[in-house]
Amino acid sequence: MVSVKSATVANSADRPNAAEALARLAHDDMRRVDALILERLDSHVELIPELARYLIEAGGKRVRPMITVAAANMIGHSDIAPLKLAAAVEFIHTATLLHDDVVDESGMRRGKAAANLVWGNASSVLVGDFLFARSFSLMVEAGSMRALGVLSDAASTIAEGEVRQLSAVKDVGVSVETYMQIIDAKTAALFAAAAQVSGIVADRPANEETALETYGRELGLAFQLVDDALDYSGASAKLGKSTGDDFREGKVTLPVALAIAAASTEETAFWDRVIARGEQVEGDFERAISLVNTHGALAATVTQARNHARRAREALAIFPANKWRTALEDLADFVADRAY
Amino acid sequence: MVSVKSATVANSADRPNAAEALARLAHDDMRRVDALILERLDSHVELIPELARYLIEAGGKRVRPMITVAAANMIGHSDIAPLKLAAAVEFIHTATLLHDDVVDESGMRRGKAAANLVWGNASSVLVGDFLFARSFSLMVEAGSMRALGVLSDAASTIAEGEVRQLSAVKDVGVSVETYMQIIDAKTAALFAAAAQVSGIVADRPANEETALETYGRELGLAFQLVDDALDYSGASAKLGKSTGDDFREGKVTLPVALAIAAASTEETAFWDRVIARGEQVEGDFERAISLVNTHGALAATVTQARNHARRAREALAIFPANKWRTALEDLADFVADRAY
Repeated sequence: MVSVKSATVANSADRPNAAEALARLAHDDMRRVDALILERLDSHVELIPELARYLIEAGGKRVRPMITVAAANMIGHSDIAPLKLAAAVEFIHTATLLHDDVVDESGMRRGKAAANLVWGNASSVLVGDFLFARSFSLMVEAGSMRALGVLSDAASTIAEGEVRQLSAVKDVGVSVETYMQIIDAKTAALFAAAAQVSGIVADRPANEETALETYGRELGLAFQLVDDALDYSGASAKLGKSTGDDFREGKVTLPVALAIAAASTEETAFWDRVIARGEQVEGDFERAISLVNTHGALAATVTQARNHARRAREALAIFPANKWRTALEDLADFVADRAY
Repeated sequence: MVSVKSATVANSADRPNAAEALARLAHDDMRRVDALILERLDSHVELIPELARYLIEAGGKRVRPMITVAAANMIGHSDIAPLKLAAAVEFIHTATLLHDDVVDESGMRRGKAAANLVWGNASSVLVGDFLFARSFSLMVEAGSMRALGVLSDAASTIAEGEVRQLSAVKDVGVSVETYMQIIDAKTAALFAAAAQVSGIVADRPANEETALETYGRELGLAFQLVDDALDYSGASAKLGKSTGDDFREGKVTLPVALAIAAASTEETAFWDRVIARGEQVEGDFERAISLVNTHGALAATVTQARNHARRAREALAIFPANKWRTALEDLADFVADRAY
């Protein structure tokens, strides 16, 4: 099993991929989660499993359900309940992706044409609804009303975050604080719930449940910060991600918010044109990349991500050291460092 | 209190409106349900209550939550749980309406411009998701895992029905059987669950729970059959409904399926053009109305609705007679007869 001795690692060539290491460790449980996912995707309405599989089998890394599974193992709880909740978490996430593609009019998802481009917006909306409903059926099977409450609250928080993000599109005045609130809601809330529910169904004391929730939330923040950095980064190609989506959609993420805060008069005019007015021409995205680098906005975003990853790691300190804890700690570093 | 002695009433002028009668009877409980709805609509993200209220306050009749409330009263269960479930049912229904408007690209909803035309598809999708998530938070508060299971299953069934309806658009070969399966899923499942959950939280024996479920399902089928008839009926104007939406969208509802089944060669060519190829010109809708009338397809649809309404009424026979049972029975007749 892979283990990383230090949280500060200079470059990725020196270290193994902690996400793969965790995936290997969680392999057996994740196979059971995958079986649950495929089983509950099933419907006599053929389009539903067809469309949902297109997305689910496109090679998503299952980070969120893996957190539920790994956290349950870390605290020594081996039961079917966390596996069902893990599947439910992935269903919520997949439903969100399907609806996001409609909302953002995205072109690509997980390296393939977005489902709404293949089957249309209507199908994406409805299959998202189906997955969302099925996620709650899975939670019912898991049998914990408290876990259900945490996940349903997370689901409404996600929607709030998405609506807020929508209102913030083309708004060059988005503050760092607003941005952090948006990503806390749209991304970190589900990571937090994914970790917390494993403590709930294992009936752990409140401080452990809170520690798990903190781990998930901080990891989720790190994850989204890096995702937003990658949209302006040369490292995206090797991760199979496209760059410039946020830019084209006029989303003011942290790299842009920081670059705008540091902008000269002439640069402010640039951001006004490309973000606020949405008038983009060839070469604008390259200029945006140059500006987020010049002002250190990209580096500052990654530094923020690393700070959150460190807090995620620290939150696990109250648990007994074991290979699962190490794997979750390493995952936090990996998430923050994948930008380079 | 209004009471109707017979299920067979020739015309509406002779009878009071049973939906209004039930609304008066359930007034106090429904005020508490409305308070719950408004409370749980709340969000620091202003667009959410704004958009949701636009729809919820547009004067929907709250038929589904009223069924939950009335059924609970009929079986003598006065508690907060059915009120919370009633609010949850209305949230699921409203979320479905918001998403339907995106799916159907409808222009009008409850006599106003559809929300997606005012705020855009993205907002309608996300606010629908928010309401859907909140509905589950309300169910958690109601405290019954079984009720939660019934409602989450209903929610996935609704999505299945909507997807199936989507696949059936422009399909002149839709059979009566397929049509009935679609409306059973997209409409009757939620009516059934709305009634059944009141029996669940009141801890009633299985036969009573089944009777409630049957009442809801049969009522839902009658409701949808009449809705589909009204799309081709002169009675729509006075109900504040627009006509021709299904026709323009190429939806093959029962009136059309029956008219197609009885069509001459020339009429078959007409349906092929206007439904299968979607080539509609002025006067086509009037011709469609004429054809569904000529072949008795509209009358047959209403007859079917009345049959289901009768079954709904009969399902309640196992309960002790009281004013609530009478009101629910009358509601079934009203739903079937509002077409004229």
